[in-house]
Amino acid sequence: MEKKSQYSAVHYDLVRRMNTLRVITCFQNLETATKSEIARQTGLSIPTVGAILNSLIEAGEILQQGLDSPNGGRPAERFEICPLNTLTLGIALNLHSSEYVIADSLGTILERHPFDTESENTVSIIENIIEEALEAHPAVKIISIGVPSSINDGVICFSPRKFKSLNDINLGRYIREKYQLPVIVENDLNAIVQGQYLREYDGVTGGLVHFFITADGVGLGINVNGQLVRGNTGLAGETGFLPCCNGRNVRDATDAATTRKELIEIVANVLASVSCILNPHYFFISGERIDPDMLPEIKAYASKIWPDGILPEVKYANDVMGHYLNGLIDMARKEIYSPDNYLVNIS
Amino acid sequence: MEKKSQYSAVHYDLVRRMNTLRVITCFQNLETATKSEIARQTGLSIPTVGAILNSLIEAGEILQQGLDSPNGGRPAERFEICPLNTLTLGIALNLHSSEYVIADSLGTILERHPFDTESENTVSIIENIIEEALEAHPAVKIISIGVPSSINDGVICFSPRKFKSLNDINLGRYIREKYQLPVIVENDLNAIVQGQYLREYDGVTGGLVHFFITADGVGLGINVNGQLVRGNTGLAGETGFLPCCNGRNVRDATDAATTRKELIEIVANVLASVSCILNPHYFFISGERIDPDMLPEIKAYASKIWPDGILPEVKYANDVMGHYLNGLIDMARKEIYSPDNYLVNIS
Repeated sequence: MEKKSQYSAVHYDLVRRMNTLRVITCFQNLETATKSEIARQTGLSIPTVGAILNSLIEAGEILQQGLDSPNGGRPAERFEICPLNTLTLGIALNLHSSEYVIADSLGTILERHPFDTESENTVSIIENIIEEALEAHPAVKIISIGVPSSINDGVICFSPRKFKSLNDINLGRYIREKYQLPVIVENDLNAIVQGQYLREYDGVTGGLVHFFITADGVGLGINVNGQLVRGNTGLAGETGFLPCCNGRNVRDATDAATTRKELIEIVANVLASVSCILNPHYFFISGERIDPDMLPEIKAYASKIWPDGILPEVKYANDVMGHYLNGLIDMARKEIYSPDNYLVNIS
Repeated sequence: MEKKSQYSAVHYDLVRRMNTLRVITCFQNLETATKSEIARQTGLSIPTVGAILNSLIEAGEILQQGLDSPNGGRPAERFEICPLNTLTLGIALNLHSSEYVIADSLGTILERHPFDTESENTVSIIENIIEEALEAHPAVKIISIGVPSSINDGVICFSPRKFKSLNDINLGRYIREKYQLPVIVENDLNAIVQGQYLREYDGVTGGLVHFFITADGVGLGINVNGQLVRGNTGLAGETGFLPCCNGRNVRDATDAATTRKELIEIVANVLASVSCILNPHYFFISGERIDPDMLPEIKAYASKIWPDGILPEVKYANDVMGHYLNGLIDMARKEIYSPDNYLVNIS
């Protein structure tokens, strides 16, 4: 039974975190709120809302505004949020255009800064950004870093050549110990698909996948049943090895592809393969080797492989950097409201 | 915000259901228990355990045994379970050997009956079993039916020829209305993988998949992050269409395969493809076209496609019918403890 108790504790922790986030998110639409307004909007019970508010007041994220003027019954207490008291630093490493952002506790981006990644020492680039950001914003409470790499048990691997200095490093542990802040390190496509899910498709259980195809490689981010799919060793979505291109794998076929038609066939094969296994609701495509005009031909080719009418909705994703940054921020917001982080890192 | 409130309600319902099941399951190891013994074993709080026990007492599933003899402090109240008050009827349709079972609320199988499926009218076979079972066991509170078919929005499709009379029928709704009991209708491989997950691998988040290859077709059951993956329209795991066999799909390659070597290559291609996308912890194989001796060659071939050392643990599954029946029963047990079923169907 040991395992089950543990599982139950994890489950409760998750519920607590999601509820805290839900209470915070309430204030996106309301300038101020009473306990019962929050309860109505979140579907949570008044005692649950009360307990969450107390933690948030203690952490300085919510302010007690005082009582409403009495109009018959007992006057209700009003609360307001201080969104600038808990900031997230999100750092999105990308082969062609990297950016870092500062976001408030409502998930709103306050500042957005492109940065250069030409130096060979990526860790010191990251350290410089963190130090600059912490000096300008002492309210940063969590750091969220996206990397175009796989992460196996915390250790970075399979980085593209430009970021090879990150390989074999437990970046999260290093940054956490150096700056004494909670840190998330996440694969870029996982962050991108989570950004899309949490901002635009929250509640979709049928699956949302994002296939990215560039001159430097391919990758897939997967959300199923509302949860990110990382796989057993963090390597879910490594579609480069998928043996679906007439005896070749996707990576080799992509490297060799020179024509528009070849690229369309490769993406169609990936679309059909992913559909056979996951039957997702949405299939997003992005990356500089693909343009939106190719979509009709991709769908037509894929429907020769996997019956038409069952194919997911296929969409070309614009503003991938926007999804990437939102994903990093939203994953950090989910993380920060864990009871553990309250105790250790927020005061 | 409407969507978020709804999502929160679903989440709570799930937590409530899982907790109720956890309290019931406690009694698998204890003849009787006090509230604090249950709280300790489940990790739930005493008030939560108390609320769940009250519902279960009202439903006749738990009995109040009276107080312990006093030894110092306030004597504790003891509870015992009546596992025969809530029975599940599980009906597992299979091409070669179908069975139905009666299980108690602890998930223990009480009776197991093979049945014949040669008749052309599968629905009337199912009705006969239900009527026979309900007459012998009036305590049956839920029916769980497994079919070797896909289920799209409740409607059965893609059945093998032998069960083609099921196609285009909303079997769940039909049986529910006729017998006024909650009914689950589930794809066979989904039930099989859930049986394995819930009985043997509960808590594994890295993914568990089960690939089934017979003379009549192929299929895949998938559990990721502890949840069954059904896909957007119930067609996740339709691996027959996977275009991974040197330009042919798995179904065509399997139909054409005559040698042991060809079959090994097909299974290895599926193993590698599924691994690239899902990176699961376990990959089970079963079906009469495969024997356990083939596993080393399957793994060796697959590791030419997807790097060795990242492949999942590959296992040959014995007693697939046992997993199938356990899956049907355990899915029914999870379903029956929803608050909805309490209100409507259990008294």
